[in-house]
Amino acid sequence: MKAELITIGDELLIGQTVDTNASWIGEQLNQLGIDVNQISSIRDDRQHILDSLKLSITRSQLVILTGGLGPTNDDITKKTLCEYFNSNLILNEAVLEKITAYFQSRNLELLQVNNDQAMLPNNCTVLENSRGTASGMWFEKNEVVFISLPGVPYEMKGIFSDVIIPKLKGEYLASNVLNKTIKTQGIGESFLAELIKDWEQELIEDGLKLAYLPSPGIVKLRITAIGNRENELRNLIEKYVQKLVGLIPNYIYGYDKDKLEQVVGELLAKKNASLSLAESCTGGNLAHMITSVSGSSSYFIGSVVAYSNTIKADLLNVNSELIHQYGAVSKQVVEQMALGANFRFGTDYSIATSGVAGPNGGTEDKPVGTVWIAIAADEKVYSKRLTLGDNRERNILISSLSALNLLRLKLLE
Amino acid sequence: MKAELITIGDELLIGQTVDTNASWIGEQLNQLGIDVNQISSIRDDRQHILDSLKLSITRSQLVILTGGLGPTNDDITKKTLCEYFNSNLILNEAVLEKITAYFQSRNLELLQVNNDQAMLPNNCTVLENSRGTASGMWFEKNEVVFISLPGVPYEMKGIFSDVIIPKLKGEYLASNVLNKTIKTQGIGESFLAELIKDWEQELIEDGLKLAYLPSPGIVKLRITAIGNRENELRNLIEKYVQKLVGLIPNYIYGYDKDKLEQVVGELLAKKNASLSLAESCTGGNLAHMITSVSGSSSYFIGSVVAYSNTIKADLLNVNSELIHQYGAVSKQVVEQMALGANFRFGTDYSIATSGVAGPNGGTEDKPVGTVWIAIAADEKVYSKRLTLGDNRERNILISSLSALNLLRLKLLE
Repeated sequence: MKAELITIGDELLIGQTVDTNASWIGEQLNQLGIDVNQISSIRDDRQHILDSLKLSITRSQLVILTGGLGPTNDDITKKTLCEYFNSNLILNEAVLEKITAYFQSRNLELLQVNNDQAMLPNNCTVLENSRGTASGMWFEKNEVVFISLPGVPYEMKGIFSDVIIPKLKGEYLASNVLNKTIKTQGIGESFLAELIKDWEQELIEDGLKLAYLPSPGIVKLRITAIGNRENELRNLIEKYVQKLVGLIPNYIYGYDKDKLEQVVGELLAKKNASLSLAESCTGGNLAHMITSVSGSSSYFIGSVVAYSNTIKADLLNVNSELIHQYGAVSKQVVEQMALGANFRFGTDYSIATSGVAGPNGGTEDKPVGTVWIAIAADEKVYSKRLTLGDNRERNILISSLSALNLLRLKLLE
Repeated sequence: MKAELITIGDELLIGQTVDTNASWIGEQLNQLGIDVNQISSIRDDRQHILDSLKLSITRSQLVILTGGLGPTNDDITKKTLCEYFNSNLILNEAVLEKITAYFQSRNLELLQVNNDQAMLPNNCTVLENSRGTASGMWFEKNEVVFISLPGVPYEMKGIFSDVIIPKLKGEYLASNVLNKTIKTQGIGESFLAELIKDWEQELIEDGLKLAYLPSPGIVKLRITAIGNRENELRNLIEKYVQKLVGLIPNYIYGYDKDKLEQVVGELLAKKNASLSLAESCTGGNLAHMITSVSGSSSYFIGSVVAYSNTIKADLLNVNSELIHQYGAVSKQVVEQMALGANFRFGTDYSIATSGVAGPNGGTEDKPVGTVWIAIAADEKVYSKRLTLGDNRERNILISSLSALNLLRLKLLE
């Protein structure tokens, strides 16, 4: 079954709204084993909607539209669908009752435009919207299913989860699509591709697909399998995942929806261990990533963001002589920072960062992108130098991710 | 000039990646006065790319493609474009030199796949990518312009800003489109709309356009003028900006590309004043925002991220009795945190935050979203309570922005 999505709304085309509906629906369909062929974002325009419907029917067996079902004049999806499906609008008593109750419960006056939302096409299945006033609609024409949903994400997701998923599962689905994403940190896309090329070749010969999904500091690998024998495919994917773990054990930090800061948090919690930070070049971003995880207060104690050298000495007990002799961006200083945080916060583990984030401030010895990371635990300290580029934002992000992955490896030792 | 965007990549269709490239390009084109007609997201599939190109030419004069230019096997955009435009790949010496230098500067080995990225179509204009190894390509066919860009947002945006905007402006655009964006913090979209409705009405009657662009903690207002008399339009926009400043002086923190953390940094630098932080609920994000500004080390001294109460007492001299009596999320404690940071770091200004970021941890007295912010200067302290929602990420972001805006207003007193 091939699907396509048509998201309707001027705001999507001028960059006012990022189309998160399309990616959400794409993920849901993918998990149901339905291939999404194309996503088209178009204007609130009658002819454009009609043209898109006509095209979609040549490519897909399931067409899902979002947007343009609101009560205002620029919302023209419903009347355009009526034209396309030769429908008449008829009053749906059940929907009217719900809309009336919705307005009464909020002490709001029921306007004519809201009343009109209970007028629905006579040849569709009405999909109940328990979170708002715009109903979903399910049409069938020439063996293609067309579903129209409101654009408000909260309402769209409600109808999709409550009504559409059960209906698709019950009546339409045959074969499965399985995905597994493996997440790596610490190796670039092309080096990774080189390292695993035999594995990739074998995987493709076994009928699986592989995609590389790079983002700053991280490369994700997605394996896809399509077919009917779900268990067999799942085992085949698992076999390749295990082989990959054997090939590049230190780079893989998680799978699917895992985040590195979460994985590290879980390892700390499991060990009943605490963490503190001494951040210079990451400037608070490492603390921010760690505390973005709900519940992090059970293992994260705190951080000193030591931007000035005086603070490195005062709060982290770094020897001023060392800063003078080697500079703040050095193995010697970053190691003292980590040990200083460990002592100051009394934690089991500490991470320290010091580097030239850029775009200015580099020297011949220490060009922009030079970063030192240290991990301290049990009065021992281990450090590593990174050589990054000249983009400040990327350098901060990659340094933070690298530091988290170093800690992860320490925690696994 | 009508444009359309084709974003290529399986990850966009299965919901693994939200298509932020399309909305970013849509916004850029909109600001140039170019109508975006359609956005199509399609698979890394030769036939699908060819079909989409054939369709686009019937609707648009400008077609921008992103994605599929990486060095790995699943990136097939370049060879498909070669087929569509009857191109041959030839070695581009300048690009090869840049790729080689890029790898050398990072002490990385140049692989064959990277080398292949210097092989480019003989009948396109190569668009320099100063941030990565995949060049952009500019083709023309039957008076339609086709531009192919890498999918990595950082690289795509770089080429777009550095090369494409100047080229479009210089060679393709007739009438002027002028935009001015006014940035506000501390007021919601609907309250703002109510407050400025007469101003908005007058602006529209004067032939200008207004767009509200809300994001967490910030509402941007974009005024657009289209026409040929550039100076006249510029003055007209300026008149409305000045009127708006009179209406809502405290909410406006900047214009166009201004960032709040940058504006605050400039105010601090101008006063030759220093800043430190004591962060609890913002967990390092405030320090991260401030240090994301290059040169911030001239005014930012450091931060204590005090996630545990012990650290609030040890490093920020907060009286443990107060924490016991009022709780960590209280006016009393956040004010002591700010004063403590001021003393500990010896700075002119300090900001402190303490709150329940959520989604868990709320009580009846202090539900999730309760946040206290304090600003200390000259041994005086001022604090404010915010009541936010239950989304952790949004709460951290809005708290950070609110704290920065409070400091901005203090600095302007």
